[in-house]
Amino acid sequence: MEAYEEFLQRVQDIHRLSALQGHLGWDQEVLMPSKGSSSRGEMMAWLAGKRHEQLTDARMGELLTSLEKESLDPDQAANVREMRRTYDQSVRLPKTFVESFAQARSEALIAWQSAREASDFEAFKPALTHLIALTKEKIELLGITSTPYDVLLDEYEVGMTVDDYDPLFAGLRERLVPLLQAITQAQATSNEPTLPDEMRFPVEAQKAFCEAVSENMGFDFQAGRMDASTHPFSAGLWPGDTRFTTRFDEKDPFSCLYAVMHETGHALYEQGLDHDHRFTPRGAAVSLGVHESQSRFWENQIGRTPAFWKVALPWFQSAFPDAPDWDEHTLNRIANRVEKGFIRVEADEVTYNLHVMLRYEIEKQLFNGELEVDDLPTAWNTMFKSWFDIEVPEDRLGCLQDIHWSMGAFGYFPTYTLGNLYAAQLLEAMADDLGDVDDMVASGNWQPMLEWLRPRIHQRGSQVSPAKLIEDATGAPPSPEPFLRYVERKYGALYQLG
Amino acid sequence: MEAYEEFLQRVQDIHRLSALQGHLGWDQEVLMPSKGSSSRGEMMAWLAGKRHEQLTDARMGELLTSLEKESLDPDQAANVREMRRTYDQSVRLPKTFVESFAQARSEALIAWQSAREASDFEAFKPALTHLIALTKEKIELLGITSTPYDVLLDEYEVGMTVDDYDPLFAGLRERLVPLLQAITQAQATSNEPTLPDEMRFPVEAQKAFCEAVSENMGFDFQAGRMDASTHPFSAGLWPGDTRFTTRFDEKDPFSCLYAVMHETGHALYEQGLDHDHRFTPRGAAVSLGVHESQSRFWENQIGRTPAFWKVALPWFQSAFPDAPDWDEHTLNRIANRVEKGFIRVEADEVTYNLHVMLRYEIEKQLFNGELEVDDLPTAWNTMFKSWFDIEVPEDRLGCLQDIHWSMGAFGYFPTYTLGNLYAAQLLEAMADDLGDVDDMVASGNWQPMLEWLRPRIHQRGSQVSPAKLIEDATGAPPSPEPFLRYVERKYGALYQLG
Repeated sequence: MEAYEEFLQRVQDIHRLSALQGHLGWDQEVLMPSKGSSSRGEMMAWLAGKRHEQLTDARMGELLTSLEKESLDPDQAANVREMRRTYDQSVRLPKTFVESFAQARSEALIAWQSAREASDFEAFKPALTHLIALTKEKIELLGITSTPYDVLLDEYEVGMTVDDYDPLFAGLRERLVPLLQAITQAQATSNEPTLPDEMRFPVEAQKAFCEAVSENMGFDFQAGRMDASTHPFSAGLWPGDTRFTTRFDEKDPFSCLYAVMHETGHALYEQGLDHDHRFTPRGAAVSLGVHESQSRFWENQIGRTPAFWKVALPWFQSAFPDAPDWDEHTLNRIANRVEKGFIRVEADEVTYNLHVMLRYEIEKQLFNGELEVDDLPTAWNTMFKSWFDIEVPEDRLGCLQDIHWSMGAFGYFPTYTLGNLYAAQLLEAMADDLGDVDDMVASGNWQPMLEWLRPRIHQRGSQVSPAKLIEDATGAPPSPEPFLRYVERKYGALYQLG
Repeated sequence: MEAYEEFLQRVQDIHRLSALQGHLGWDQEVLMPSKGSSSRGEMMAWLAGKRHEQLTDARMGELLTSLEKESLDPDQAANVREMRRTYDQSVRLPKTFVESFAQARSEALIAWQSAREASDFEAFKPALTHLIALTKEKIELLGITSTPYDVLLDEYEVGMTVDDYDPLFAGLRERLVPLLQAITQAQATSNEPTLPDEMRFPVEAQKAFCEAVSENMGFDFQAGRMDASTHPFSAGLWPGDTRFTTRFDEKDPFSCLYAVMHETGHALYEQGLDHDHRFTPRGAAVSLGVHESQSRFWENQIGRTPAFWKVALPWFQSAFPDAPDWDEHTLNRIANRVEKGFIRVEADEVTYNLHVMLRYEIEKQLFNGELEVDDLPTAWNTMFKSWFDIEVPEDRLGCLQDIHWSMGAFGYFPTYTLGNLYAAQLLEAMADDLGDVDDMVASGNWQPMLEWLRPRIHQRGSQVSPAKLIEDATGAPPSPEPFLRYVERKYGALYQLG
């Protein structure tokens, strides 16, 4: 199969360039000195251009056409299928466009960082307007078959459209909003434990505590790193080198802990990919939704349980000897406190998806021509008030809070909700296979859970579509029901709801 | 000039790939998790192969031939001249050879690290033997005109051969060996101050102290970083992002300080390059010898003087409040202690060049066919005994101490001595222009020195040859005399020699 060998070589070259982009991206967030930003932007744009050049090489088109007529094994077929999709999209985008977009992203990221710091939307507006204009241009170039926003949604979770998300989100809202109201009522009469205002949790101790948790989840620190950055993220990079970051708040060790559990979830997926297929789609994570299922699984379904805190309590006590004498139930209540807050990444499991839906609605309006950038803060704040019944006091706590738009990642947010749904569905299936998951978590031996995920999710890479992957792993197509069962049961028990 | 534009584009692409290699190299030394080494080696080999592919593209040859007939400005001419040399060498090396060499380097580096740790030459021997065999193959491919070792010497300082180094080194030895004997005799009756054995200098305090020194030298920390690594080094990377490393020994703050001054010297050169010419030879440092002149200038001629310690004394006292009440003269004596030690990087200015010459002699024998790898430790130890009159107790303190051979950098060491000679010559010329350098150092305002170096060395990049650059800057061709005058005067004063 000479054609396949040539194709594979080209595919690996393209993925190596992406891996270099990922590496420089990690470095940019974690280490880069401020004056390096301009040449970093230039380098990122250059890499994007080179990658695009190779991706759209006429020979790639010829090879795809010829290989599509061959009989291939499932792994080869997956690579051809995925590259066909990427190729067909890429050839629609001129190289100059790809370079401009990369450059605009780098610049917007810097503008956003200072605008967010100063809570000054006007300072971010020019860069955002430019990115939105470029994104609309991209939508035109890629070609609209239904709504413009659908083009963006498809980029992050293949096959998902407004027609899929609208009813899904409406159904979720229908049951989450009453649940939230019931919890708020119950909280009014209960005495919720909180972190003492004056208490400080030293950064070094948080680091040690979180490393212990991450290691117990199965993260291999000899094949990866944990660092600090403004915005926690995970970078697969390449075999033997997977890195994630967290952030430290001396007043709140939970912020760091759940960032670490979340990012470790992502990182375990990356560490568990089949490295024999490295630098190919087959060897890469299948979708953002599935990626998010791995992070949310560990962060919430494992991490925010009394069973987890039973195991973590001695680590917590040894890291923070000055902390109050909390037991696992108190720690778990603090970790699961439901609050109508402003910040998505700090939201509990009930409100989290409402935050996602808000961004989805805003993006839909932006790209389907119903909202101008000028009106974005007002639209955000109005919708937030109507859903959460609180006023957004400043844009830092509103439309400036997330990094995504500064990276041109429009259409990304809904995958977070998909992740929550997939995670709950995986948990039910895991329990069917392994027995009570709470018992397993409480035992401290979490290896069987990771070993259950490895062959069903991690090692399969992009062998099949996200929906097929979830169906193969759980025996049923993706559905919101397991998630709704999960939150209603969990919060029903926590707040003794009727 | 369409041809020049096309040429420039290709040159920048090649240099961007080198910059990526540099970035991954920095990461590998500073951060990489241990299990990342295999895929890092693969990535480095891939980048080397891609770079080689572009470098040896037939179109590059055509462009060079056509541009050599054009009338070019001096900057353009420098790029064509340098690329011609690189092209002519590269086309003699098959891509598979370049990839194998890169892979062998990555593997040898890992083997060397553990072999050095265990002081076990046998553990390093297979990798070293492989690298030497590949290097001999490279010499054959590049073509021998005089001796095989000359081919390697030319790679690191163009135009320098055994016929240049042999008499240069002999002349230096002739005056350094008696100087060393005189110092040793003087020390026998003097009472040299030393660091108290039980004294500890905390890492954080060393860091703060060294950062203050580096900043006063002119290093821009917003356009660079200081980190820790096993072996201090400096990485130019790219505009606005120049990084150097140091190491910390809690018993000896001088080790860190002089590593920082040395690496800051390199880093100032990189920060001072003309970034309008970025990613071209014209915009890059001209040679290793000149690079080393910048590091040694700051480390020794500025840093190991009473004038420096007059300025640094309050910083030292504030960083290390528990240190003895030393004055600047005592600190300077400790910093200039001449000792016949085993380790090159810790050597004083008198013995340093003897360490270099030893490696030069060993390499000359290795590549000119007079020494087998099996006999390397014995040859090293015998020569060391005869020059330094001390026995090497273990290979960690002998032939395993330096990183260079594990990186396939044979022929590199002599450039260190060139750097010492150039530095002394620059100091004399600077004093002619600016007046007494000691006074300037003692004033604490070191900016005029940096500003003297900027247009004469840094900004010129590879505009002219190293020898021409030194001649333009100092008014005389490179010579060992200023260095010999410098050490004889300096150590004569320190030890009151006759």
